[in-house]
Amino acid sequence: MKADTSPADPGDANALHPTYALDDTVHQRVRLGILSIAREAGQVEFGFLKNQLAVTDGNLSRHLKVLENSGLIAMHKGYEGRRPRTWVSITTKGKRALEAEIQALRRLVHRLDAGEP
Amino acid sequence: MKADTSPADPGDANALHPTYALDDTVHQRVRLGILSIAREAGQVEFGFLKNQLAVTDGNLSRHLKVLENSGLIAMHKGYEGRRPRTWVSITTKGKRALEAEIQALRRLVHRLDAGEP
Repeated sequence: MKADTSPADPGDANALHPTYALDDTVHQRVRLGILSIAREAGQVEFGFLKNQLAVTDGNLSRHLKVLENSGLIAMHKGYEGRRPRTWVSITTKGKRALEAEIQALRRLVHRLDAGEP
Repeated sequence: MKADTSPADPGDANALHPTYALDDTVHQRVRLGILSIAREAGQVEFGFLKNQLAVTDGNLSRHLKVLENSGLIAMHKGYEGRRPRTWVSITTKGKRALEAEIQALRRLVHRLDAGEP
């Protein structure tokens, strides 16, 4: 029965773990996928996201709505021939948020690599 | 109005995005923090986790329970002097799951770095 570590000073922000820097809105698995694909592809169609991320329509819609409400993506409805389509693009704010997430992940992976037993 | 990409073949698993390889149980921000700290520290006390991750007691307890139920951590209750304490340690299964998460994050960051505009 032992504590290998003593409690951090609650007032010291530097004592917080790197995962504290992660933003749940961006970090969530499906949303991280949406933002990544949208950044790669420029503009991406709903059905493509659905296939790539292997999610249901309802699940994808829910996550798109969260990202849209946070201003990280823009959605655009239209037609391809006679078929209704929804296109998704990443906003400037979304690009910045994704970049911050990548930086935080890089720091976390670096720290975990350094501390590997 | 355009689709920059055509739908992936739904039967082709290789067409799935790297985020598909992430496991929600491990990827969730607070749980990723718990597993990381537990791996670094060997055995870690509840209050230390709470400070490091800046979460409430209830929030931390909920995430610890998820990890314990998945067999990724073990919890041990005892006393330090007269004060009740809960210690958390990562299991072998937890170490493997964290390693898989890190590998998946590394692939994701690499892909995003490569595709940077």
